[in-house]
Amino acid sequence: MNVLNRIDSSADIKALSEEELKTLADEMRVFLVESVSKTGGHLASNLGAVELTLALHRVYDTAVDRIVFDVGHQSYVHKIITGRRDRFGTLRQYGGISGFPKPREADDDAFIAGHASNSVSVAVGMAKARTLCGEHYDVACVLGDGALTGGLAYEGLAAAAASGEPMVIILNDNNMSIDPNVGGTAHLLQSMRIRPGYIRFKRLYRDAVSRTPGIYAFSHEVKEFLKERLLPVNMFSAMGLNYLGPVDGHSLKDLESVLRLARDMEEPVLVHVLTKKGKGCAFAEEHPEIYHGVGPFDPNTGEIKDTGRSFSDCFGETLCGIAGQNPRVVAVTAAMTLGTGLEGFAKRYPDRFQDVGIAEGHATAMSAGMAKQGMIPVFAVYSSFLQRGFDMLIHDVSLLKLHVVFCLDRAGLVGSDGETHHGIFDVSYLRTVPGMKILCPASFGELSAMLRTAVTDMTGPVALRYPRGGECGYHDVHVEREYLLRSGENITLVAYGTMVGEMLKAAEELERKNIRADVVKLSEIDGEVFPLVRQSIEKTGRMIIAEEVCSAGSIGTVLTAQAARAGIPVRTALLNLGDGLVPHGSREQLMRDFQIDAQTVVQEAVRLCAKT
Amino acid sequence: MNVLNRIDSSADIKALSEEELKTLADEMRVFLVESVSKTGGHLASNLGAVELTLALHRVYDTAVDRIVFDVGHQSYVHKIITGRRDRFGTLRQYGGISGFPKPREADDDAFIAGHASNSVSVAVGMAKARTLCGEHYDVACVLGDGALTGGLAYEGLAAAAASGEPMVIILNDNNMSIDPNVGGTAHLLQSMRIRPGYIRFKRLYRDAVSRTPGIYAFSHEVKEFLKERLLPVNMFSAMGLNYLGPVDGHSLKDLESVLRLARDMEEPVLVHVLTKKGKGCAFAEEHPEIYHGVGPFDPNTGEIKDTGRSFSDCFGETLCGIAGQNPRVVAVTAAMTLGTGLEGFAKRYPDRFQDVGIAEGHATAMSAGMAKQGMIPVFAVYSSFLQRGFDMLIHDVSLLKLHVVFCLDRAGLVGSDGETHHGIFDVSYLRTVPGMKILCPASFGELSAMLRTAVTDMTGPVALRYPRGGECGYHDVHVEREYLLRSGENITLVAYGTMVGEMLKAAEELERKNIRADVVKLSEIDGEVFPLVRQSIEKTGRMIIAEEVCSAGSIGTVLTAQAARAGIPVRTALLNLGDGLVPHGSREQLMRDFQIDAQTVVQEAVRLCAKT
Repeated sequence: MNVLNRIDSSADIKALSEEELKTLADEMRVFLVESVSKTGGHLASNLGAVELTLALHRVYDTAVDRIVFDVGHQSYVHKIITGRRDRFGTLRQYGGISGFPKPREADDDAFIAGHASNSVSVAVGMAKARTLCGEHYDVACVLGDGALTGGLAYEGLAAAAASGEPMVIILNDNNMSIDPNVGGTAHLLQSMRIRPGYIRFKRLYRDAVSRTPGIYAFSHEVKEFLKERLLPVNMFSAMGLNYLGPVDGHSLKDLESVLRLARDMEEPVLVHVLTKKGKGCAFAEEHPEIYHGVGPFDPNTGEIKDTGRSFSDCFGETLCGIAGQNPRVVAVTAAMTLGTGLEGFAKRYPDRFQDVGIAEGHATAMSAGMAKQGMIPVFAVYSSFLQRGFDMLIHDVSLLKLHVVFCLDRAGLVGSDGETHHGIFDVSYLRTVPGMKILCPASFGELSAMLRTAVTDMTGPVALRYPRGGECGYHDVHVEREYLLRSGENITLVAYGTMVGEMLKAAEELERKNIRADVVKLSEIDGEVFPLVRQSIEKTGRMIIAEEVCSAGSIGTVLTAQAARAGIPVRTALLNLGDGLVPHGSREQLMRDFQIDAQTVVQEAVRLCAKT
Repeated sequence: MNVLNRIDSSADIKALSEEELKTLADEMRVFLVESVSKTGGHLASNLGAVELTLALHRVYDTAVDRIVFDVGHQSYVHKIITGRRDRFGTLRQYGGISGFPKPREADDDAFIAGHASNSVSVAVGMAKARTLCGEHYDVACVLGDGALTGGLAYEGLAAAAASGEPMVIILNDNNMSIDPNVGGTAHLLQSMRIRPGYIRFKRLYRDAVSRTPGIYAFSHEVKEFLKERLLPVNMFSAMGLNYLGPVDGHSLKDLESVLRLARDMEEPVLVHVLTKKGKGCAFAEEHPEIYHGVGPFDPNTGEIKDTGRSFSDCFGETLCGIAGQNPRVVAVTAAMTLGTGLEGFAKRYPDRFQDVGIAEGHATAMSAGMAKQGMIPVFAVYSSFLQRGFDMLIHDVSLLKLHVVFCLDRAGLVGSDGETHHGIFDVSYLRTVPGMKILCPASFGELSAMLRTAVTDMTGPVALRYPRGGECGYHDVHVEREYLLRSGENITLVAYGTMVGEMLKAAEELERKNIRADVVKLSEIDGEVFPLVRQSIEKTGRMIIAEEVCSAGSIGTVLTAQAARAGIPVRTALLNLGDGLVPHGSREQLMRDFQIDAQTVVQEAVRLCAKT
């Protein structure tokens, strides 16, 4: 790591020779594979973006210029360059550096990221602010072809074109979002990729510079000359954006030339860069979908540690079974076929499988259309990503009481992906949707049973929410709306989903302290009425609920209000994640930090029972 | 109304001669102007869509085929044709027909509408369901150029192209959304509009038909022949959609020809139709933005009854004042310049005014980018439309604690626009956003004061919510988080925003019944702690809160839970809009129906005070 060890900022990259840059790219890839093999993380996309990121740091000063990464999972090289190399072994670990850009980590991270397709909009805002404030820094954003499948990116592109603001939109096109790209966007890009040969920007750029007194003084004629030659007619140019590309995303020289040219045009420019996901690492090149986001693995063979059966696996298998019996069942995903466990379904029922790209709003509205005409769509989606479909949940699904089943994977704390990915707002936003039933399986068996019920027996909108990973200390099956798992007269403990195991642990610990608890498990958390909880608190006069969600709209508030309406005096401790700003770290660690774990339940129970 | 009076279904339209159709179009326009002049409603867009709607009914049978109207404000002619002519005088009135498509009104209304840009997604879902079910009806959708500025439409178009499903997407391009179109989308369309002359589809269609044994048996060659000649290269064709157009949207013959052709291609086809908003009515043609959605007016002159000063007016004027003092203030709207009262700001500060089109997600993310770089964006948006920006509120604004001010106009019941437009979910979804402050001005004076505070003194995300129209019986200014408006020992009445006037009315009525009430007005409704309410209920032991929002996430639940946590026994009546499914009708009528009015408060107070 001769070169890499000397790099601490953009300035260091600018000082390197061509030869050193090539060495750095090689060293960077070795460093990435070794480091991510220990911490887990996003591998393939970062391997693909090595040269692009180096070129960005050749052209821009990220301490001053604003480079907005879309999704941000491709920002590792940027982080390593900008002073976080030594701490890179703490990636995604509690207290360590985040797997996504974070302005609080470094000023070089211009904005937060995690969800897709927002970068163009954010960059447009920054460029406008820059101009209105009379400042002169540069603004750019980097988005993948996957992000381009989201309508928000289209809104941003339209605004960028209209703004006339100097800004560079870099389309990192690896012909592959998380799942293979779909639909009209892929079609659009395909037609651009096949242009014979890549334009050699360097020569053209030299020509341009030699014709003008200074880089910043392009004449109108030169601009038009460049545009005519470089800009084919396509969607981007038709929208009014300057288009440059496609350019080889692994040629540092080409990249640097085209980025300088784009920057110096001082207009909105889209640069189309072709990269290969996993570049330079055989197993990642071969299976970029597997090494997109991955846990720890063997850096030589790529072998991944088996993490055991997950709720996603259970969901996928169960849905295949249901679909075999019911030809009306359709599975929908927004670019998360693997993540939601639908790869088996996709192979077995290709006609009834829809991957719409990163387009949760469309997936929700399309599902509504399907349901209106007699199908039963099951939309599997990460809890935090369905926030994009909130309006469609109300407007398109709920107002017509349509039977769409939403399967919210990654509900609750997701661990190392951190604050943008925790599924901790869904209880609140789902409860807001008129008529939405909300089911909370706490074990694989419950997920299977509830999914069957949701698809076969229910009507109207239904949501199931279940966590990332596997079961959490509870393996039974009780699908009643409320179920008394354990009986005791001193205190009522309430939990749903993943917190059930934690509550049972707390109840056992309390038993040893001679505090006997009712443990009420909730399977459905819609509505305002929970008779079993009410009955229990009438007996105990004390209640603790622990929830892996933000406090606003939490069930604890609902249960407490129920008690008050019924005139039942009750001492309560409502344990939840507060305002919902939760960093990355292991679920266990975060549960301790936010005091929703069994240990806290025990302490609170002792406190409540001590009062007289 | 010789012809119009004979029309009750699609079949009746199909039986008309060319001459009769022309007469019908004329009669329809007279009928529209007369009727809407009494009820108020969407005039200009319906006048522009007369021929298009007649052509749709010539080609399709809306009882079986599925025609999805985008937004749906252009569906009046469709409603009049399909059996609702006699009831058209009840448009938008309580118990009368809705101003938007409603499947419960007629099977001819294929889907619900109100929010923009969803129609393509819904139609894709319907087309897929049709094919998967082995059925044979046709599917089409009609969207305006305004709807095309929303990214959801782009997601839908991409999916339509990928689906290969027989379906027709009709782009009703009137070169004018609610406000003039903006950005790259307008640029895209402009390049298509200027093609010299309109293609004459009729002749081409006849050619095609004469070459083939039957309409449904187009050979591959004929399809290619047609495509080559009819389809220019543009964004839509680049996405893989067949493109037909542009066609004169006021030529019934051309429209009918092109729609038949598009339908019979049995592939996804986009038909680009050029229409004129307000067509055939001088004042509506001249000022389509004014007669887009309008209250009652003089059918001869267009003179509109003055509705008095509104919260929107007050907002616009105040913001101009603030912007004059603070150069960092920027105003943002999503195609609602007039509706949100920003037309003065747009004229006075054009550099600091952004109309982004119907793109609430982009507006939110762009505002975040601006705020990150030192500007203070004020995004004025209808409460129910900001649902589209829910994810960006959390992800882009809140996680970085950025200072963006959201001004939610049309919060609460909106009256005649009905269920898709009521702003009754915002309290719940805004409370879910980490760190969001929520201010509820109850009078013009409070709006002015709170807006100044929000822009100048606060940090982080702030929302102000205020209603459609003017003040509701309260005109004072008290901006404290909680304020005791009236003092009494028997019961605590709590209200915020528009409900304050209603509560004061109830308190006066109760005084006459010898029940004395504390009336607590809330100005801020974030958080869980309301000390003044707590103090009051400790005294009275009884609480009523009346809210113009859905029950989930309502403040009543929060206040009740606070009482329970504090161990204060309290009898409560939480008055709100239940699950949030609220039809159209006057605010007063709806308040009575949903029992959140002063009369209900009085009854409930008497009931609570009668118990011992």
